[in-house]
Amino acid sequence: MARALDVVSSRSALLILREAFYGTTRFDDFAQRSGISEPVAAARLAELVEDGLLAKEPYREPGQRTRLAYRLTDKGAELFPVLVALMEWGDRWLAPDGAPVVLTHQDCGEAVHIELRCAAGHPASLDELDLEAGPGRHAAGA
Amino acid sequence: MARALDVVSSRSALLILREAFYGTTRFDDFAQRSGISEPVAAARLAELVEDGLLAKEPYREPGQRTRLAYRLTDKGAELFPVLVALMEWGDRWLAPDGAPVVLTHQDCGEAVHIELRCAAGHPASLDELDLEAGPGRHAAGA
Repeated sequence: MARALDVVSSRSALLILREAFYGTTRFDDFAQRSGISEPVAAARLAELVEDGLLAKEPYREPGQRTRLAYRLTDKGAELFPVLVALMEWGDRWLAPDGAPVVLTHQDCGEAVHIELRCAAGHPASLDELDLEAGPGRHAAGA
Repeated sequence: MARALDVVSSRSALLILREAFYGTTRFDDFAQRSGISEPVAAARLAELVEDGLLAKEPYREPGQRTRLAYRLTDKGAELFPVLVALMEWGDRWLAPDGAPVVLTHQDCGEAVHIELRCAAGHPASLDELDLEAGPGRHAAGA
């Protein structure tokens, strides 16, 4: 987890990733929608590309010069549960007016939530968990 | 989510919360186990208490003066899915030697993972989700 935090612990990186999950791909939109300054957005986008969470793709609209689009890689897309867990916690503890955004399941329209479950399919609450040393226990920085 | 990031976006805050989930309660142990300096640990612990994620409780061991223990509140404990989601992502993308810690379900011994599921009980992947405006859509800072 400590290594994961090295990649995503800045507030602005997570705000940019959230916009990427919402479908934003263009630099101007990232800066504007995430509410962070253009220089900071540019620095964070470059870091997210370097860390392999976003990939740059050239695109060109008619009559315009070639620009770059930023798209989530698999590595970036798999951070989605972290953002959903943060959203749920913020909605519950910090949003007196209710959730600003609701995630729903396209197939059935029901609200989507994050859950802890074991491989046998049981929901698992915090007080039902054991922590065990894993194979990488003694790796540096674990 | 932006408000949630205001509370927990620092690397050191998340490292201290992780130790709290592992059962750490004493100042000296937080500083030592999270690998951050004592002044930074003291500042983060004070902020986490102020934000209501940890609560201070006096305790006294025989022959010692009264000290303070830091315990997770409900608000703090409910951040656990965020940390599990970060751990899982880090294990998958950043831990070539395997997971340093494995979470298991006490009842059945199976590994525990984070999942997105809808209220109807279906597992929901990223490409099956819709985003809808919620009741707090126009709240400041949402």
